Amino acid sequence: MILPNPTEALTLNPLLNAITEDVMGFLNEIQLNYPQAISLASGRPDENYFNIEEFPEYFGIYVDWLATSSGQEPEKIRKSLGQYNRAKGIINDLVVRYLAKDEQIEVAPEDTLITVGTQEAMVITITTLCNRENDVILIEDPAYVGITHLSIIAGYQVEPVPVDGNGISLLKLEEKILACQARGKNVKLVYVIPDYQNPTGNAMPLENRHRLLELADTYGFLILEDNAYGEFAYQADTPLTLKALDNNKRVIYLRSLSKTLYPSLRLGVLVANQQVEHGGQLVALSDLLAKTKGYITVNTPSITQAVFGGILVKNNFSLKKINEPKIAAIKAKRDQLLASFNEYLTGENNAWAKGISWNIPQGGFFITIFVPFAVTKEEVIICAEQHGLIFTPMSFFYLHEGGKQQIRLAFSNVSEEEINTAVYRLAEYFKTKLHLTQ
Amino acid sequence: MILPNPTEALTLNPLLNAITEDVMGFLNEIQLNYPQAISLASGRPDENYFNIEEFPEYFGIYVDWLATSSGQEPEKIRKSLGQYNRAKGIINDLVVRYLAKDEQIEVAPEDTLITVGTQEAMVITITTLCNRENDVILIEDPAYVGITHLSIIAGYQVEPVPVDGNGISLLKLEEKILACQARGKNVKLVYVIPDYQNPTGNAMPLENRHRLLELADTYGFLILEDNAYGEFAYQADTPLTLKALDNNKRVIYLRSLSKTLYPSLRLGVLVANQQVEHGGQLVALSDLLAKTKGYITVNTPSITQAVFGGILVKNNFSLKKINEPKIAAIKAKRDQLLASFNEYLTGENNAWAKGISWNIPQGGFFITIFVPFAVTKEEVIICAEQHGLIFTPMSFFYLHEGGKQQIRLAFSNVSEEEINTAVYRLAEYFKTKLHLTQ
Repeated sequence: MILPNPTEALTLNPLLNAITEDVMGFLNEIQLNYPQAISLASGRPDENYFNIEEFPEYFGIYVDWLATSSGQEPEKIRKSLGQYNRAKGIINDLVVRYLAKDEQIEVAPEDTLITVGTQEAMVITITTLCNRENDVILIEDPAYVGITHLSIIAGYQVEPVPVDGNGISLLKLEEKILACQARGKNVKLVYVIPDYQNPTGNAMPLENRHRLLELADTYGFLILEDNAYGEFAYQADTPLTLKALDNNKRVIYLRSLSKTLYPSLRLGVLVANQQVEHGGQLVALSDLLAKTKGYITVNTPSITQAVFGGILVKNNFSLKKINEPKIAAIKAKRDQLLASFNEYLTGENNAWAKGISWNIPQGGFFITIFVPFAVTKEEVIICAEQHGLIFTPMSFFYLHEGGKQQIRLAFSNVSEEEINTAVYRLAEYFKTKLHLTQ
Repeated sequence: MILPNPTEALTLNPLLNAITEDVMGFLNEIQLNYPQAISLASGRPDENYFNIEEFPEYFGIYVDWLATSSGQEPEKIRKSLGQYNRAKGIINDLVVRYLAKDEQIEVAPEDTLITVGTQEAMVITITTLCNRENDVILIEDPAYVGITHLSIIAGYQVEPVPVDGNGISLLKLEEKILACQARGKNVKLVYVIPDYQNPTGNAMPLENRHRLLELADTYGFLILEDNAYGEFAYQADTPLTLKALDNNKRVIYLRSLSKTLYPSLRLGVLVANQQVEHGGQLVALSDLLAKTKGYITVNTPSITQAVFGGILVKNNFSLKKINEPKIAAIKAKRDQLLASFNEYLTGENNAWAKGISWNIPQGGFFITIFVPFAVTKEEVIICAEQHGLIFTPMSFFYLHEGGKQQIRLAFSNVSEEEINTAVYRLAEYFKTKLHLTQ
């Protein structure tokens, strides 16, 4: 018998081809190829604030807390922490106290799921709610590629809505909804990052938040609010999250803990307090989300949940104090970035740079730079090789085309000194580039 | 403005309705409602062998091992273990040594992914490989519902292939493949649990394994081999896994660590050493699976991976010694089960039970009982309420209909004494039931 060639026989999900740009793969490769270059490509949190050697202590605090509050033997609790557990999570009662205290979000433990990062929360939400035939997911553009690429390979209809300095354009959103309706499509979810958006660094003003919630009421969509950077506000009196303002239960809220605590815990909180009709009954959406989660990861590791539980207990259900020094540090980095921009890209000595500008983020890890030339993948390689700096073209974050003359810089996991050197190198690159293109 | 009622506006993925039976929900509810009943419903591993207080030690062993083998400072390693990490995993080099040593599976670290349990591995595999339009996933029937329900809600075409005492029926499999081809469909994946299948407890003989691999060559499908129970063999000289026999790279292998170590670690190993054409190039399937994983959970928690890494280092890359007492214990439980069956369901005194029979599992956590009446959900409630015993109707594990006169008992997380009591109660229930139905 002649065996077919296994290689030839293997075909793939054709939707994988729809993801044209392997953004993460490309950036990882560049960093491996140019290890000496300063990277402002990745929005990783500052490792100086990592203390994972404290995890066993937090784990113990959680076990003690549970023993005291439940009356169970610590040994029995430890056994249960080795076993399968609830799909919704095991620390939901602690997490809702944190949400209430730090974010003014008042929900019941049963309205929450502890997920393997917010990425899993997106998978769960979309899988549970969306109908591939008729539903459209609107995504701010540019956006975190995790939501767009997931939706595409999983076969959902996604459409972009442009963002401006105030977050998602509400005008364009309404136009897009009407256009979808005219085509017989239903806008089910609108994905936004209102706080210090990845990739632009912009935030949504309070009045836009209220207006977006009104639009959700008017057009019957749900808002998928992704909050990873909200704590990292450079000044007080920032607007509340959409979820905290959500009187009509229009928001499904994703609270990432990767930036404020540790990415390696892979923990996110999914808040969904909606009710929904299913099988002729009114049921909690969170129950259906938990059912779906059972088919994605069964449950979130109890070990990492217990560590987070211990952190919450030890800090009286607030992360504000833990995050104070982190916020001060990231603000100092933003300030350094702007100071370096001023030094190397403004003023009489730098008249050549007059076509270059940037936004001034009020929080978060990212800044947008606008340049008078096209920023391609090749430009990333040139800048890394010739100037020792790695950045991300903004075009990587667009669903189709866009942001061709923009750069995203991530300044979270570099020192102020590195930032200054990086901006100097960036200016050198710009000079060469503008000379070449003039 | 009159706001639409948010509840009325919310619609769901219509495929959720295709899952008729919420098996897990129902069983959980029964256990909550009848806390005094002995439960033989759930295939949880025996908690007597849990020692999660050792996790910090294993974590430390992993850090030391990595420091010694890589020359990195332990402090730097700890920082990196707080950060995002590789989508494929961080302990793949240790895991392939374990696969080679314990399972005679020889693959490169790059051919493996460390996943959030094998459930996530299924999501990743199906999402990467399958085309909703043309591809069919064949699933042994009855089967672990995690694969069937996932496939259904994610919109894939699944079809059942009956199992018998030797695992998946190879005759029916071939018939089904030909029937699919005749309808213009492509059988992409065939999901099997060759070792001590959940739910039946049966194993696939060696010659069937070879024949299944031949069929994969002949018809160009991939085998998705799920191995959670393979170590729990009651005697030596059991057949190798399909993956260990896989000369033509036809098998994608899922190695669960939930039964042999801890469910709460949520760790699985996905082995895929196939090459595939993508974007005009021949690429490693594992690279594409890793890309998909980036959109499901980004990466598996480094913390739990490090604990498993430490367990492997400490045990010289073999789990055999750790699992020896666990295997002896589960074998003793199987023996007790059979002894109790003999006592309460066979012999002259129990002539009433002549219509009742069972298979004799040679490994694993499950046994099948055949009874001369229909085992419905209502029967589960009756037996729990009146006889203090919870079991699972085999029909719960069928894709459509089947197994109506069968029961699955899981005997992994109960003591031998409880097993004896449970079988006594089961016999009492059968007596009542047979009297009622005569």
